[in-house]
Formats: sequence, C-alpha cells, structure tokens
Amino acid sequence: MTTTDSPVRLRAVSAPDQPDVTPALRELYRGFEQELLVPLWTEIGDLMPAHPQSRAVPHLWRWENLLRLAAQAGDIVPVGRGGERRAIALANPTLGGRPFATPTLWTAIQYLMPGENAPEHRHTQHAFRFVVEGSGVWTVVGGDAVPMNRGDFLPQAGWNWHAHHNATSEPMAWIDGLDIPFQYVTEAQFFEFGRDEISDAERITPERSRSERLWAHPGLTPIAVTHTTPGSPLLSYKWEYTDRALSDQLLLEKEGYAGTVEPGHAAVRYSNPTDGRDVLPTIRVEVHRVARGIETATVRETGSSVYQVFDGSGTVTVGDHTWSVTRGDLFVVPSWEPFSVRSEAGITDSDSQALDLFRFTDAPVFETLRLNRQETTR
Amino acid sequence: MTTTDSPVRLRAVSAPDQPDVTPALRELYRGFEQELLVPLWTEIGDLMPAHPQSRAVPHLWRWENLLRLAAQAGDIVPVGRGGERRAIALANPTLGGRPFATPTLWTAIQYLMPGENAPEHRHTQHAFRFVVEGSGVWTVVGGDAVPMNRGDFLPQAGWNWHAHHNATSEPMAWIDGLDIPFQYVTEAQFFEFGRDEISDAERITPERSRSERLWAHPGLTPIAVTHTTPGSPLLSYKWEYTDRALSDQLLLEKEGYAGTVEPGHAAVRYSNPTDGRDVLPTIRVEVHRVARGIETATVRETGSSVYQVFDGSGTVTVGDHTWSVTRGDLFVVPSWEPFSVRSEAGITDSDSQALDLFRFTDAPVFETLRLNRQETTR
Amino acid sequence: MTTTDSPVRLRAVSAPDQPDVTPALRELYRGFEQELLVPLWTEIGDLMPAHPQSRAVPHLWRWENLLRLAAQAGDIVPVGRGGERRAIALANPTLGGRPFATPTLWTAIQYLMPGENAPEHRHTQHAFRFVVEGSGVWTVVGGDAVPMNRGDFLPQAGWNWHAHHNATSEPMAWIDGLDIPFQYVTEAQFFEFGRDEISDAERITPERSRSERLWAHPGLTPIAVTHTTPGSPLLSYKWEYTDRALSDQLLLEKEGYAGTVEPGHAAVRYSNPTDGRDVLPTIRVEVHRVARGIETATVRETGSSVYQVFDGSGTVTVGDHTWSVTRGDLFVVPSWEPFSVRSEAGITDSDSQALDLFRFTDAPVFETLRLNRQETTR
Amino acid sequence: MTTTDSPVRLRAVSAPDQPDVTPALRELYRGFEQELLVPLWTEIGDLMPAHPQSRAVPHLWRWENLLRLAAQAGDIVPVGRGGERRAIALANPTLGGRPFATPTLWTAIQYLMPGENAPEHRHTQHAFRFVVEGSGVWTVVGGDAVPMNRGDFLPQAGWNWHAHHNATSEPMAWIDGLDIPFQYVTEAQFFEFGRDEISDAERITPERSRSERLWAHPGLTPIAVTHTTPGSPLLSYKWEYTDRALSDQLLLEKEGYAGTVEPGHAAVRYSNPTDGRDVLPTIRVEVHRVARGIETATVRETGSSVYQVFDGSGTVTVGDHTWSVTRGDLFVVPSWEPFSVRSEAGITDSDSQALDLFRFTDAPVFETLRLNRQETTR
Repeated sequence: MTTTDSPVRLRAVSAPDQPDVTPALRELYRGFEQELLVPLWTEIGDLMPAHPQSRAVPHLWRWENLLRLAAQAGDIVPVGRGGERRAIALANPTLGGRPFATPTLWTAIQYLMPGENAPEHRHTQHAFRFVVEGSGVWTVVGGDAVPMNRGDFLPQAGWNWHAHHNATSEPMAWIDGLDIPFQYVTEAQFFEFGRDEISDAERITPERSRSERLWAHPGLTPIAVTHTTPGSPLLSYKWEYTDRALSDQLLLEKEGYAGTVEPGHAAVRYSNPTDGRDVLPTIRVEVHRVARGIETATVRETGSSVYQVFDGSGTVTVGDHTWSVTRGDLFVVPSWEPFSVRSEAGITDSDSQALDLFRFTDAPVFETLRLNRQETTR
Repeated sequence: MTTTDSPVRLRAVSAPDQPDVTPALRELYRGFEQELLVPLWTEIGDLMPAHPQSRAVPHLWRWENLLRLAAQAGDIVPVGRGGERRAIALANPTLGGRPFATPTLWTAIQYLMPGENAPEHRHTQHAFRFVVEGSGVWTVVGGDAVPMNRGDFLPQAGWNWHAHHNATSEPMAWIDGLDIPFQYVTEAQFFEFGRDEISDAERITPERSRSERLWAHPGLTPIAVTHTTPGSPLLSYKWEYTDRALSDQLLLEKEGYAGTVEPGHAAVRYSNPTDGRDVLPTIRVEVHRVARGIETATVRETGSSVYQVFDGSGTVTVGDHTWSVTRGDLFVVPSWEPFSVRSEAGITDSDSQALDLFRFTDAPVFETLRLNRQETTR
Repeated sequence: MTTTDSPVRLRAVSAPDQPDVTPALRELYRGFEQELLVPLWTEIGDLMPAHPQSRAVPHLWRWENLLRLAAQAGDIVPVGRGGERRAIALANPTLGGRPFATPTLWTAIQYLMPGENAPEHRHTQHAFRFVVEGSGVWTVVGGDAVPMNRGDFLPQAGWNWHAHHNATSEPMAWIDGLDIPFQYVTEAQFFEFGRDEISDAERITPERSRSERLWAHPGLTPIAVTHTTPGSPLLSYKWEYTDRALSDQLLLEKEGYAGTVEPGHAAVRYSNPTDGRDVLPTIRVEVHRVARGIETATVRETGSSVYQVFDGSGTVTVGDHTWSVTRGDLFVVPSWEPFSVRSEAGITDSDSQALDLFRFTDAPVFETLRLNRQETTR
Repeated sequence: MTTTDSPVRLRAVSAPDQPDVTPALRELYRGFEQELLVPLWTEIGDLMPAHPQSRAVPHLWRWENLLRLAAQAGDIVPVGRGGERRAIALANPTLGGRPFATPTLWTAIQYLMPGENAPEHRHTQHAFRFVVEGSGVWTVVGGDAVPMNRGDFLPQAGWNWHAHHNATSEPMAWIDGLDIPFQYVTEAQFFEFGRDEISDAERITPERSRSERLWAHPGLTPIAVTHTTPGSPLLSYKWEYTDRALSDQLLLEKEGYAGTVEPGHAAVRYSNPTDGRDVLPTIRVEVHRVARGIETATVRETGSSVYQVFDGSGTVTVGDHTWSVTRGDLFVVPSWEPFSVRSEAGITDSDSQALDLFRFTDAPVFETLRLNRQETTR
C-alpha cells in the first residue's frame, strides 16, 4: 500500500497541544500513513472527551407522519422473503443517514395489511414490539402465538424464530425496537430464514400466549420449566398489569408511602421473571407515568434512550431541544444529554390523563460492563 | 476433667472393621476419653452412611386434631410478651421430643382469638404463614398490614419486625413455617422485642398490602424501590394467582404443550420477584396440584419437606408409610425418603377437585451449598 | 402411640411468661404429648435467644497429647477398609460425647505409619488436610498425587476419590477438617468405597501435584480446563506462598500502606482461583499472623471456628477461657463467643517469631444464607 | 429540514427482493427522506447478515516499522499535557483511517524517552500495557509504582489515575491496549486530568508493586482488603509466572495429562484474583504457546482479537491472509474470520523456542451479553 492510497490522512497543524509543524513532523506523518498508524495526540479530544458527547442528536418523529408513510408503504411495498418486514426505521440526523435512532438502538414502525404475513426468521439481534394503538396482529414466537393489543409489550430475545400475521380486516402498526446498531458495530450478528408460511394451527388468536400462561403469574415460577436461553421467557407484558402497577405507585405516594421515582412520577421496568433482570440482555424497557402538571428532575445518563408517548401530552426537554409531544410521538435522548419532562396540567388530576412514556435504552450494556453513570439535578 | 466425668464414652467391641479388643486398646480408649477424643473408626457408619438416613421419620398430623388442641389452647393460654405466639409445633417422633418437624424445619399451627394481638418482635429465623382455612387476621410486617385469607402464602425473611392482629369476631388458625431447627443447630439466631402494641393506624385491613401494590405485578419491577435485604419483598402471594397458574399448566398439558412436572401434575414455586430465586434464603415453598386419579413418580431428594393438604384428598406414601390424607393434614418427608402421591379418583376430573399440596423444604440450603441430589423413579 | 410412650414430655410450670398451671393446662399438655406437639411458649427461650448461645464450649486440645495418643493408635489400630482412616476427632465437652469439635465442624488428627495406605473412598463431606509438622505422606485425589509438607493446606471438595500413602520410613500426622457435623444435622451425606489399593503409577511423590501445575500460578487460568464441580481445583496451597503473603502484608504496613487486618495482624483466606470464593462450599480457611507483642481486637461472629497454632506462642482468650498456646495446639471458638489473641512479646520483632494461627470456620454457610454477623471491639 | 439537506438518501432500485420502482415508490422514498426514515428492506443485507462480516480486515503491522517510527516520534514529538501520551495507534485499513485496530479495540505502541514522564490522568476506557522488549519504565497507578519488564502484563481498569516515568537512560517502548473504539461507539467515555508531575516519593522502582504484594500469591486473598471497583486489583502479571504456567501445561501433556488446548498448544487467560473473571470488564487477555512445528486448529469466533508475537516465529493465517511473523509483530483477527497458526519447526523441540502469542479480545462484551459463538475446525 502506498501513501497515496492509504486510508490514513494526517495533517500537521499548528495548534496548542500539537507538536511543532516541521519537515521532520511531516515526514513522520507520511511514515505513519504508510504504515497505517494514527497518533493519539491528534485524536484524543474526539476519542477521549471529558464526558460523552454523542454523535447523535436529540430528535423528534411525529407519530402521524410515521403512520401516514407506513400506510403509504402498505399500499405499494409488499411483505415477503428477502425484505422480511415492512419496517421503517428512524434515522438520527447526525448518524450518516443510517437507520440508527441512536448509536446502539434501532426503532421502526412496522405495518401489516389485513391478512398479511411476515415470514419466519431468526437473528441474534434482541428485539421487542410495543403497541401504541390498534390490535389484531399476533406474533408467533417459537410456535407460540402472542396477541398484540394497545399497550402490550412483547420482548423477544435473539435467536428465536418468529413471524407475524394480521388476522383482521384492518391494517395494524406498532413499533419494533432492536439492538441492530449495537450488534452492527460489535459485529455479532447471525441471521437465518425460517418457514415461508406458518401453519394453520398457528393461525389462531388465543387471548393469552402459552408463555403468559406459564410465566405471567406474579412471583410464581413453573417448577418443571427450565429456561436457560438469554432474555425473558415471558413473551407479552399486557398493558392491564403495567397500568395497574403505575396507578398503585401513585396511590401509595398519595397515602404517604414510598414507591414513586419522585413526586407524581411512577415508573416500572419490565423484568425477566426468572432472574429479575432486564427482559433483554442489551435492552432495558420501562414505562413512566407523569401525573398531570408535574415536572420531573433533569437526568443525565450514559447510554441512549428512545421514548414513545403512550398517552397524554406534555413537553419534553432533551439538551437544547424542547418539544410538545402527544400520543405516538417518538424522540431520542443521546448519551449524557440532560432530559426532563413536564406533563400537561389538566383541570382535574385523574391518572387516566397522566403522561405515559414508554422508554427503552441500552442501559444493560453499560451496567453489565460497569460503565453506567447517572446525574440527577432537581 | 477426669475420665470418669468425661462426656466421651468409648467401648472396645469385637466386630468386623473394629480393632482387636486388647488391654492396649482399652487403655488407648481411656486416653481418648480423658482428652475428649473420639476415633472415626467407631463412628463412621453413623456419620458417613452410604446415603442419608434420617434421624427423623415420616409422620402425619391430622388437621382436625391440631385445630381442636389449638382451640383448647385459645381458651386457656393467653398471647403476650414472653411467650410471644400461641403456636403449637409438630415434634417429629424420633427427634427427642423437640419441636422439630424435620431436622431443619419448624412447623406450627398458630391460633388467634377474636380481637387478640400477638406482640411485635423480630428474629433472624426466616418464616412464613400459610392459610389453609379462615380469614380475618392480618400480619403487620415493618408497618405494612398484610391480610390473610385461605390459600394465601406470606413469606417473611429474617429480621423484619412483625405482629399479628385478629380483626374479626372469629378465631383464626394458620400454619407457621420457620427454619428454627436449622438456625438452632448452626447457632445463628438473634431475637429482639418490638412494640407491645401496634398503632391504631396499623389496625386496618386493606385488601392488599403495600408490598403487593409494589411487587405483585407480573414481570414489573418498581424502578424506584431498592430491595437489598434477604428474601422476597412481596409479603403475600394470593391464592387467586397460585390457583390460576396451576390451572393454566394443566390446561396447557391438555392442549399438548409442556408445563407440568409429569402428566396430571402441575407445580409452582413461590419466587422472589427481584431475582427469581426462592422467597426465603433457607426455605423453598411450592404448591403442587395433582389432578384426580393421578399417581406421581416416586422421588427421593436430599433435604426434608413438610406438606400440608390444601384441598382434595388422596393417598401419600413416604418410605414405608402410606396414609389417606385430606384438607389440612400435615406430613413430613425426611431426607432421601421415597415419596409419591395418588390423588383420589373422582367421577369427574374437574380441576377444582384435584389434590392441592402445599410444600416447603430446606432445598435452598442444599442447592446453595451444592449438596442437592435427586432421584426420580417412574 | 399412647401418651406414655410419646417422646414429647411437657411440664406445666409456674413461671412468669408461662400460662397458669391449671387442670385444663395439664390436660392440654397431655393432648399435645399424644399428638406429638410442643408449644412455642415453653421453648422460645432456648430456641430463639437474643443472640447465639452455643451448645458448644470453648476448649483447648494440646498437640502433644493428640500426637502421643495418635502414635499409640498407630501401634495397635490398623488402617483399612471399614474404619477407613486412623483419624481421632476432637469432641467438644458439651456436645454429648460426639466427635464434633463444634456443632458444624469435625477436626481430627490423622496418623499414618511408614508404608501404610489409607484406602480410597469418596464422600459428600467437604474436607481438607493441614500439616503442622512432618512430611512424606501424599494424598491421591482423583489420581493426582499431592505431596504434604509442613504448612501445606490441601482442600478437597466433596465427592472426589481420595487415598493416602506414607512413602517414608517415619510415621506422619496431620489434621483433617470436615463438615461432618453439618452434613450430619442436615442429612446430606453420601459415601462410596473406591479401590482398596492405589496403582503403582500413583505411588510417586512429585514435587508438585498436577493441580498445582495447572492452577497455582497467580492470576493465570488455564484456558482449556473447565472446572464445574464445587470447591477449588487447586489441591495444595503450599506454605511458601502463604508465608510470603503474610510477610508482605506486614511489610506493607511498616511502609505505611493498607493490607493488614489491624496493626501487626496479617491474614489471608485460601480461595478458589476459578471464582475467588471459599475453597470449600461449607468451610472457610484462613491463616493469621500476629506479630510479636501484639494483641488483636476482640471479635464475635456467628458461626464456629477451630484454630491450630502453626508457629510461635501466645495467649488466646475465648469467652471466659484464657490459654497459653504453642505449636500444634487446637482450640475452638463457638458461635458468638468473643475471641482475641495476644502473641508472645519477644526481644526482637522478627516475623519468623510471630504467632501463626491456622483457622477454619463454617462462615460460607452463614454468608451464603445471609445469616452472618460480626462485632469487633477494640 | 428539507429533503435536499436530509442526511437520508434512498434510491429506488430494480432488484430482486426490492419493491418495483414506480413513481409512487419514489415519492414514498422522498417522504422517508424528509422525515428521516430508512426502510429495513433496503438495508437488511448489510445490517442483518447470515453471519458477522467485519468492516475490518485482517492486517499485519511489523514491529520493526512501529519501533522505527516511534523512535522518530521520540525525537520530535514531546510528551505532555494535552497530547498526554506518545502513543501511535494501529488503524485498520477499512475502518476509515480511524485509529481503530478493530471495531472495538485500540492498540498502540507507546514510547518514552529517558527521564521522560507521561502526565497523570484517568479515563473510563479500560486499558493495559504489555512489554515485548525493554524495561525501565514504571507506571504509577493510584500511587502504586508498577515496574515494567519484558513479558509483563499490566491491566488497568477504567477510572484509575495513572502516569508513566522512564527512570533509565534508554528509551522504552511497549504496547497499549484499550477499549477506546468500543466506548467511542457506545458513548461511555469520561476523562479527567490529574497531577502534571508525580511526587518524588513515587519516583522509585520497587521490584514489585504494592498490588503484587497483596494479590500475586496463588489462591490467597488478603482478608482485610476490599476490592469493589471493576477489573483486577493485581496491576502486574509478571512474565515469570506466565512462562511457568505455559511450560507446565506442555509438560503435563507430555506426561499424558489434560491441560493444553490441543496437542502442543498451551494457553492461559489473565484473570482477576477476586472473582476468576477477566482482568478487565471489556477486554480478555491471553497468552498462547505453540510448540515447535505445531499447527493449531482453525477457529472462528464472534468478536475481534489483536495478537502480538512475544517470542519465536511462525506462520499465521487469518481468513485469506497468511503471514510469516516474528517477535513483536502485531496482527488483527476480525469477527468470525477463521484463524490458525503454524509455529516454525526447529531442529530441537525445546519450549524456549516455541511461538508465544500475546492476545487480547473483546470477548467479555460478547460473553456478558450472551452474544458469543465459536466454531473450531480440525
């Protein structure tokens, strides 16, 4: 490889903290280029900043726009083997036009027309679905048909076969979250095609999946079922339970007891019933309920988050950006960007009008590798 | 200490595997006695058997007898500071008349008269309550009032303050399980008196304890609550959920799916929602449902169990003992004794008539220390 | 079972905290006896004390006496199948003449005559050997010949085949530590005979066992060796390393750095190189070095310990007992008994004259089950 | 944001698995661009390949070239605050000219002139040093001076203060390994400047660091030292031990016992003595010894590795590349690329002439997140 076609390009520049620009330095840099070497002293500011300075930026996607474009795609883009899914992903403005909501997280709206099937496949990428509105699609995971309704959260750890079927006469949309960018940068991905068609026996819509019948009983573990694969064996976390857990926390607070994150701010984390840890090895998922007229503390955390407004409306502030948000809107909080929420103040303070935020993050990566930090400002 | 008052007594005996009885051996043994020494070769058969040979024996206690005597005690034995609880414990016939159901487990019927209080205390012994019939008492654990109704299981890890109150006009009985014998032999016990009277504010009977409002939502962890003390933060596992989990397993089996222990035999383990492990560090608790007319495999396990029949009737076999059992009856399965159950065959096979068995064991001790073994014979 | 032959014996006594002695109470107690029941209120003081009150007492065994009696046994008691080992165990004075040094720990002197073999067997009891003086015996564990020399510590987790051989022309003594009493009370024991004779190939005395060649390199794990059985894969912890680690701590202290337990008191714990935890699931083993003229703080801990003086001399205080001790002497510290040591003050303070104490305890049982407590008084 | 300045660029192309190119599709894609959306169906091949297809390529850097350029840099580039280190990093040819040896690992040669200091700082990036030749520099980590000599490995987990000093009259070079790229892509980095000068008291060259005196005793844990920060407390793994561990494995193999990875191939992993796990949360480090004339099996693994030849010579094959390598040469193995080694056949087979390979990888990231896979072909 000659210098001229080396991918390394080094410029000797006059700057504090940089060596004097001399012919010798220029010669040294040509030697570096030739040998594919880059000195630390020209790069340290970018590589080793005082604190995380994300390549991503805060950004908001409006649900109505996503839904409109997804519906358009429903009309003209078929679903089938090869493309696999009618999924349309958020591309953070400063990540080079790649379909990465944040440097580690993928988020897409998926759309299935009446009677359509998305063919079976499996991949090492950890995934979930969350339903902000609609119903009628079920996901078959390892032969277990899991219904999808508003508010339901369906985690699905890597390397499980899965397909989707829309059993109704209406199209349905939901969001998919995956660790595609993380597995892309670490280069961990495997992918395999499954059956093109699921069996008739799987084309049923049970009220509850088999996984729920085994695992969705609080504090009860089936003795005979061994679960050793990564992630949660529970394939659906129904909204009914999430809603009640959040309401309970706010009621406890009103009675004077601990339970909420801060006044008026309840939150639950979806957890793996076999070990209490995160539902997916690389993704944490939470739901936050901010009662009417409440402003949360400002939090900065290592790692990035994607939020979707599940219900209610309010104002969110991420770094220098402030947006009014309402049902379905999605936004990202890059690493170490300050984040706070103010829910809309109502005339009454009934829970049903609170601002409910669905959130997912790469926090398990940071915690497992002991890289997590958090700062809260009140 | 002279030989004559030494607690060590050694007899030189003529037996295979024993040294020849000579004056020298007798003198050696006197030397051992004087120095408080005991040779392995006289004891090895007892101390190091080929497999566990329990000092305890299988035994059955009839609920009607327990209840009758507990009611008698209710009339003449007050509850108060010092005696602490009107609890009457099972004494395994071969454990020296001590109140030990097995070498590691304590089991008692506790009885509280209308309006009575059992004063607050705490101890390192891990404990639980299980209600085979009745209702109306609540247990206050760390200020949290936990109602008790038929089928409810209330774990309570060591060193938590607790008191009982009977808020009704009827007496109520339940069973207490503790690791008193285990902590007695290992000498780990601490005990402390609390308030003699609980406050009026605690004399309420909420439908659900605060612990349930925080922790009894399947797969949902309150983000803001840190639980670091041993054992489960969930203070009541209501029968409603246990019943449904067991029914679900049997239904899955009928539909051709995995989930049961063996045909017609469903079982759940109560687990700590924060880590999926046992509810108490030293005690595992399970509920088994054996459908009508089913005979289970014969199982031998290290460690001991106590069972109580929660519902239905049938026949249980423990080692050489076979008993007909019905609601409330309690029996013990000593370490390594073969155990099987046959539920009563009914005319119909509805679940509600199945044999439901509540079980607790010292399995966590064995598993944590890697001493567990199991053998199943079908 | 009639009342008269019931093992339960209840006396109605006039005492504070006891119910009034009435004919009804006497009748109730007869009913309890008949049904094999024992009330809590007569037993609570013994079963649930304010803090552990050990059934064992502090006691000292002089090494010279043990050695003398072991040598006598060497002359007249053969070693062979059935008796298995010429091991003579410490019997705590208040544990009923049983060979239990403490309620959970067995300690014995083992003695092997020149050329003698102790036959192969295995058992679930976790065991170790420690050599206070002598050399020349090797232990074959799973076919790996492990030499034994002064100061060496040989852990051997349960269910490993093992035999001993004295390859020299001198008798040799050492101490065995096991969890026999713990496994006796919990009823976990399995035992199996192995070969009567080890092979000639195993009758070698390598300088280092194979286990040491794989595992005794600090911070280095053999990539190709999977170790999944309980306990440490390292079968000998040579004195050379222990001695150096203790000296290093005292030197660091002199240079002004942290490392010692308290001034003049160094201590190491033998650990499993695969996980850094205790070498045996139920037994912790430590060596303490107390520099000349140092008095340690007084410590109380749940769980019991056995100590052997490895070198030096001094005074130990256990509860109300104080003894002068010297090389080889063994003593026990029952649960929650205060313990302190004062090493003999010398003319110089060289390390080689320090008081070295070998210690083993049941601490892993307490820590794993979260029952451990400690109090230090300075 | 208008379409024209959107970072998203979507081309409707005629291809199997792609929707038909129609005006409607083009309009849809313009809509996607405007809303910063990217469909899965155009990206799936790149993002979700059948197996990892690294963006990096296998590449070799010759030590003589590195050393020559580093020495040149020594003459003209000062070391000081701002640039921080005279470190020159390997830039994989296909990673855009960035100083990333692989997508997750940074590798640099560092060079310190006689008497020079590299100023104190700390960062969350996990780091290590490895010395292929030379000596005389010591690294001060948290005030503990750690000498550096040929073969020594010095791990240093994130957020520890550290500085370097060359105490000799010769320049010294070594390699630095860090997880800079991994923390760059996940955005976890914090950095802080420390003292510009270390104290005179720290300018000593002890034979062993304090960390070694506490932690480098095999299987011995200092009782009084609590280590809770991430990574190993042992700051130097001296070559003497590594060398002996590798020789021992090959000797065991010759005697017919297990221990090596495969015939003639010994390997050790540096491990944290407190838990037996990897020395750094994100980096695994190993040393492999391939006896003369041995060819290893071909291995494919998720995750990437960097190797440096410590001693000997031979031929390495990575994917389609085969190189002759000798002391100091560095090469990378990208994710899932097949890798094998053939050591030079010598006239004798003495160990001292074996091929010794130092290796580090991002394996802990994959294992902790359960993304690891391996395939071995013999």
